[in-house]
Amino acid sequence: MKLVRTVAELKDLVKEAKKAGKSIGLVPTMGALHEGHASLIAAASSENDFVIVSDFVNPTQFGEGEDLDAYPRTLEKDVELAAAKGADVLFAPSAREMYPSKDMTWVEVTGDITRVLCGKTRPIHFRGVATVCTKLFNLSECDRAYFGQKDAQQVQVLKRLVKDLFIPLKIRVMPIVREADGLAKSSRNTYLSPGEKKAALVLSRSLSEAKKAFEAGEKDSAVLRKLVEDKIKGEPMAVIDYVEIRRLEDLGEAKTTVDEPHLLAVAVKFGTTRLIDNVVLA
Amino acid sequence: MKLVRTVAELKDLVKEAKKAGKSIGLVPTMGALHEGHASLIAAASSENDFVIVSDFVNPTQFGEGEDLDAYPRTLEKDVELAAAKGADVLFAPSAREMYPSKDMTWVEVTGDITRVLCGKTRPIHFRGVATVCTKLFNLSECDRAYFGQKDAQQVQVLKRLVKDLFIPLKIRVMPIVREADGLAKSSRNTYLSPGEKKAALVLSRSLSEAKKAFEAGEKDSAVLRKLVEDKIKGEPMAVIDYVEIRRLEDLGEAKTTVDEPHLLAVAVKFGTTRLIDNVVLA
Repeated sequence: MKLVRTVAELKDLVKEAKKAGKSIGLVPTMGALHEGHASLIAAASSENDFVIVSDFVNPTQFGEGEDLDAYPRTLEKDVELAAAKGADVLFAPSAREMYPSKDMTWVEVTGDITRVLCGKTRPIHFRGVATVCTKLFNLSECDRAYFGQKDAQQVQVLKRLVKDLFIPLKIRVMPIVREADGLAKSSRNTYLSPGEKKAALVLSRSLSEAKKAFEAGEKDSAVLRKLVEDKIKGEPMAVIDYVEIRRLEDLGEAKTTVDEPHLLAVAVKFGTTRLIDNVVLA
Repeated sequence: MKLVRTVAELKDLVKEAKKAGKSIGLVPTMGALHEGHASLIAAASSENDFVIVSDFVNPTQFGEGEDLDAYPRTLEKDVELAAAKGADVLFAPSAREMYPSKDMTWVEVTGDITRVLCGKTRPIHFRGVATVCTKLFNLSECDRAYFGQKDAQQVQVLKRLVKDLFIPLKIRVMPIVREADGLAKSSRNTYLSPGEKKAALVLSRSLSEAKKAFEAGEKDSAVLRKLVEDKIKGEPMAVIDYVEIRRLEDLGEAKTTVDEPHLLAVAVKFGTTRLIDNVVLA
């Protein structure tokens, strides 16, 4: 596997792969790779001839006061993990490489899909995600790009982006990978104290209960949402940002009765660490 | 040549061309094709194996009160001209085909480059241009895209867009095509009365004089600009929107001395018709 630091070098490798008729898979990450990323890289390796993992803490998707500087950087470990899972390239550019102009070219998906859920408290987040992913899609000329269902809103935003801009690739979504105790894998879990980590189990437990209730016949969206909210409120260390249920496709308002796929999503702070988790009811 | 009305059909043709290893040239137009467009299509045909001409009056680049409804539509003639110049496809989609979602995904180049010149009086224009061109670039998977130097600011905006988003194509720019009397070819020339058309000659004449003065040794940017402005002010039917000189690359403020490429550009109304023209001093 090659560690690539410049756009020019990546372009050359992509050109070569295209010339050889290889299919290309892209796994965009912010590094600090864990088992969730590993599952994406493994899927990309099994479905494509040439796999690029990007490893870039994208500054434009962090708002003021967010954890851009604190975000974990573990490049050496990332190289090992990506190689072990079958990546051909780990692309770890500088911010200057990714943003060559003083003034920005932005890509922005508008509407509820970026305004609700995380968009409410992170108003510039999805513009940064859409912009950097468009760059990575174009650079990699990938046939398939891999994302985790953990970032459910990101997945829906990028699906819309690809559809609206006619980007010739497929978005592949892989299931949430969890610790044995249920906590969704996240690079930010390293911020948690042992007590916070234990308290954070309330997220996966409450969502899993709602899923069970849904499967047992409960279709009232308000009841399902309340079930999760009440359970999280029972955990003293949890400070709720949101507990919401929305239609999956466009993240529009939930129907009274869940008779099409809905997303039940939460963002909750434990100490200074904000965690997200979700479940699809379908 | 095929007349194509849907995105799905265009995608199939592009797929086929790519499979056959053909290079693809794209000529984005708003239809009402004239000799300016003809020169772009001819260049695309000579440099690529497969040529797509898009013919789409893009609503998102027109502001309120602009000439979206009045803009000339001449599809039958366009088909003839594009075929004669060697196009393989004329892609004339509906607005619904190009904008499939209720909420938009926008592509926006920020900074002076879109704020000055036409950006001042047409604040949403280049966002519409950037968005529709990104869609057309992705749909066509083109190796080269062709634009006329007449739309000098558009050219610079799209060059920046392609550079910033790493879109894997080359922007090819063709010289302004003029009538025998010097008037720059434009679909909007059909709006002009005979008197206005005659008056409009002041644009090419004044720009050409400035170019001559520059070549004869006049390097003072303010003097060169003033020369054009004074000459246009001498034409009673001309109502100036702007007469500006700017650095070519980023359309930043002109240097006192023109010792790198500068753009001398004008937008002037004759009756209700707004015309643009320019010359590069280099």
